Amino acid sequence: MSENEKKPYVTYGSCACGCSGASKEITGCRFSLSPMTDRFIEVILGAIEKVHTEKVWSTTDKLSTIYRGKREHVLDALKACMIHAYQEGVHMTMEATVSKGCPGDTDAESYLAEDDALLNEPEIKDIHFPVNCKISLYPMGVPDYMKYIADVVNMSIDCGVYDRSYHYATILEGDVQDLFAYFDKATDYCGANLSHYILEITLSVNSPTAD
Amino acid sequence: MSENEKKPYVTYGSCACGCSGASKEITGCRFSLSPMTDRFIEVILGAIEKVHTEKVWSTTDKLSTIYRGKREHVLDALKACMIHAYQEGVHMTMEATVSKGCPGDTDAESYLAEDDALLNEPEIKDIHFPVNCKISLYPMGVPDYMKYIADVVNMSIDCGVYDRSYHYATILEGDVQDLFAYFDKATDYCGANLSHYILEITLSVNSPTAD
Repeated sequence: MSENEKKPYVTYGSCACGCSGASKEITGCRFSLSPMTDRFIEVILGAIEKVHTEKVWSTTDKLSTIYRGKREHVLDALKACMIHAYQEGVHMTMEATVSKGCPGDTDAESYLAEDDALLNEPEIKDIHFPVNCKISLYPMGVPDYMKYIADVVNMSIDCGVYDRSYHYATILEGDVQDLFAYFDKATDYCGANLSHYILEITLSVNSPTAD
Repeated sequence: MSENEKKPYVTYGSCACGCSGASKEITGCRFSLSPMTDRFIEVILGAIEKVHTEKVWSTTDKLSTIYRGKREHVLDALKACMIHAYQEGVHMTMEATVSKGCPGDTDAESYLAEDDALLNEPEIKDIHFPVNCKISLYPMGVPDYMKYIADVVNMSIDCGVYDRSYHYATILEGDVQDLFAYFDKATDYCGANLSHYILEITLSVNSPTAD
């Protein structure tokens, strides 16, 4: 047996585009909060603890927190975490990967609640602050992916949160409520029209950099 | 004219998969440093200023810094910025999007130096610290994208930086030098085998979270 044959290589053997590895409608997000303050531990842990996660599967590792479940509940938990982490005057970023339909995905480690009632929205819906944002959409496995990207960017224009397109991202800005309303529409569209997509989102608040 | 007709919608009109919008071999990266300390401004600006950027086109906006040019020089500048920002005991993340071949890209705002001599490597090659990392590769416009992802993940096993595959990312760990040596190999492979790819990288140092 050669050296290479002993290595635990991945193959993603039976994975095929257009055929999600998970049989259920699992949307997931993996996100990291980075509050740029000496008090970052209490800001991150304080926010994560305040989120009602009964309707999503969740775990936190060294790099990120992950929520998996129905799209609406995953976004509700993500939004709650961002809003609970927000501190007046503290610069913070949230990097989030929202994804559905990966051929390598499985049904495991998810929770699909039966009803649509959002657990966090009632206590966060009236909290407002301005956010700078960038997004990049990756529709996988299709040759005409630029069409879907254009549709989702144009949706941000309709939602009033579009700022400009620039290298490797679309720049958005707006109130936290309006941005998450847009993410809801964009992921609803992607989930309905693409078998596998990834939406990369970075939110930034209280940046000292001038406009 | 209706309300909608006045909006500056994007079309990405003549963009087609497999046909990069830029005629040259431009690789780019957009990255954000998040040092979790009250001194974040001096850490970020101090690092950016120390990077020799004569061989890349660069700009910094409210959300990120962008380098564009030849692949080797873009990675050299990115690595230098991470190493110069590193502070003993300070938790920091670097979120980086490395990309080549976007149909929406243009030849503008790039700089392709003629020679391959790295400007930053000589002064950073002997600096070592451990890094936790996650990567996600997005090969665009091809139905068999999982094959390319498997190849790049297996390359991390060969480089000795693979930890595990987990939801929405591959987890890596290793010395900063070994990780960037792997990014060099991975992007070399992707640039040669894919017309458009995006490699999302998050580096994390000095996390207080236990393994």
